[in-house]
Amino acid sequence: MNEILTSSQNDRVKAWRKLSQKKHRDAEKAYWIEGAHLLEEALQSGADIKEIIVVEGSDLQLAWTKFPVTVVSDSVFKSISQTPSPQGIAAVVGFGELNYAPQQGHLLLLDAVQDPGNLGTMIRTADAAGFSAVVLGKGCADLYNDKTIRATQGSLYHLPIYKADLAALLPELKAEGYYTWVTDLTESTYFHECEVPQKVALIMGNEGQGVSEALINAADQAVKIPILGQAESLNVGIAAAVLVYHIALAHGSIK
Amino acid sequence: MNEILTSSQNDRVKAWRKLSQKKHRDAEKAYWIEGAHLLEEALQSGADIKEIIVVEGSDLQLAWTKFPVTVVSDSVFKSISQTPSPQGIAAVVGFGELNYAPQQGHLLLLDAVQDPGNLGTMIRTADAAGFSAVVLGKGCADLYNDKTIRATQGSLYHLPIYKADLAALLPELKAEGYYTWVTDLTESTYFHECEVPQKVALIMGNEGQGVSEALINAADQAVKIPILGQAESLNVGIAAAVLVYHIALAHGSIK
Repeated sequence: MNEILTSSQNDRVKAWRKLSQKKHRDAEKAYWIEGAHLLEEALQSGADIKEIIVVEGSDLQLAWTKFPVTVVSDSVFKSISQTPSPQGIAAVVGFGELNYAPQQGHLLLLDAVQDPGNLGTMIRTADAAGFSAVVLGKGCADLYNDKTIRATQGSLYHLPIYKADLAALLPELKAEGYYTWVTDLTESTYFHECEVPQKVALIMGNEGQGVSEALINAADQAVKIPILGQAESLNVGIAAAVLVYHIALAHGSIK
Repeated sequence: MNEILTSSQNDRVKAWRKLSQKKHRDAEKAYWIEGAHLLEEALQSGADIKEIIVVEGSDLQLAWTKFPVTVVSDSVFKSISQTPSPQGIAAVVGFGELNYAPQQGHLLLLDAVQDPGNLGTMIRTADAAGFSAVVLGKGCADLYNDKTIRATQGSLYHLPIYKADLAALLPELKAEGYYTWVTDLTESTYFHECEVPQKVALIMGNEGQGVSEALINAADQAVKIPILGQAESLNVGIAAAVLVYHIALAHGSIK
C-alpha cells in the first residue's frame, strides 16, 4: 500500500491546490477534476490523466491503477478539494493546444461568455443536441475552471472543444461550407422564420454585451428569439438551448 | 430629512435581516428585494410594498416617497444586503395567498424544482415565451428566496405565479381545456413529433428525480427531448426552455 500523504503543507499538495487558479493551470498545462464519474469519462475519452489522488480507505478500480496514485489523508483531501462535498477521488489531467480541426456537423461558437456556469451548460447542451464541436473565442471563461467543468456534467469529454479567434475562423468555416448564424437583438430575423442550413455555425455572445459588432457584421444571418411576454431578455444559456435544438431538429427524423 | 439608522443591532435591522430565511418570510408574509430596477418592477406591477430602505446619501425618486422610507448607514445596509454588490436601495414587499386562478394561455407547472436559480430562470423563460402563468407545486424552492428573485430578473412581477398541489390541480385544468404535457425520459414521445394543443400545461420536474410518478400517470402526454450526443441529460432549465419555446411558437406567426 502507498504511503499516506498527511501534510497539507507538502509541496505536491500545494501544487494541486494551485490548479484552482488559471495562471497555474496554464503554466502546468494541467487541470483538476473530481469525482469517480468524471474520472471515468476522462478515462474513456482518452484524456491525458497525469495522476490520481484518493483519500485513504478508498476502493480503487483496476483501471485506475495504471496511473500514478497518491493516497492522502481526509484532511489533506478536504484542503485540495474544489467542491463543497468532496468525493474522495480526483485527478490531474493534462491539456494541449485546442486548435480547431474541420468538422462535419453543426458548431457552437462562444464569444466572450464570461460565466463558467453558462459556459459549461452550453457545452452540455451542444453535446446533448449532437453538435460536432464547441469553439471558445476570446474572453470566455476558462474551460478548466472547476465551475465550468461541473456544469458540463462530463460533456467536455464528449465532443471536441476548441479555442480560436472567431473573427479569423469565420472565413475558414465558410470554406468548409458553414453558414454562420449570430444572435443579435436589433436588426435580425426571428430564428424560426429562417431556413436552417445543413451546416450551421451558431455564435452566442457575452451575457451583457451580446456578440461583438465585428462578428455580427461578418456572420451570414442575424437571428433573434421572439420575446412574447414582458421579460427584457433571456439568459444566454437558455437562448442557446432554444437555438441549438431548433437547428439540431430541423433536418430529418430521429429514431 | 429622516433620521439615519446606524446600529446593525437595531431591532428593525434585525427583522430585515431575518427576511433572508424562509420561516421568517412566511411568518411576516413579506420578503426582501434589492436594487432600483427590481423595485421599479415591483412598483409598476402593484406589488404590496411595505417600506423602502436606502443607504444614506441616495437620491430617491418621487414615486418612492409615498412609501415609508428608512435611511440607514452604509455599514447597516451592507449588514442587511443579500447581494454581493449592494445597490443601496431595498424594499420589504408583502405577499398573500398564491391561489390558482383560471388562465387562457399556456402554463408552466413545476414539480419539486429545488434549485432557486433553476426556478427563477424558468419563471423568466416562461415570461419571455408569453406563457400565462407559472404554478409551483410541492417541494419547489421558495419563490422569495433571494437567488430565485435574482434569477427571475424581474419576471416574478410580469406574470402570475401560483402555488398549488399539482395533482389536485390537474382535473381543474382539464375542465378549463388544458392538455397536460409531462417530461419523462422513459415511455414518452419526442416533443417535436407531438401536435401542440392550443392550451398546454407543461410539467417540469425535480433536478434529480424528474416529475413524480403520480403526475406522469395523470398527464395527457409524456414527452422527451432527444439526446443526440453523449450527454446523459439536460439541465432542467435548459429542457424547459426548449419545450416552452416550442409550445409558444407552434401556433400562428409573431409580428
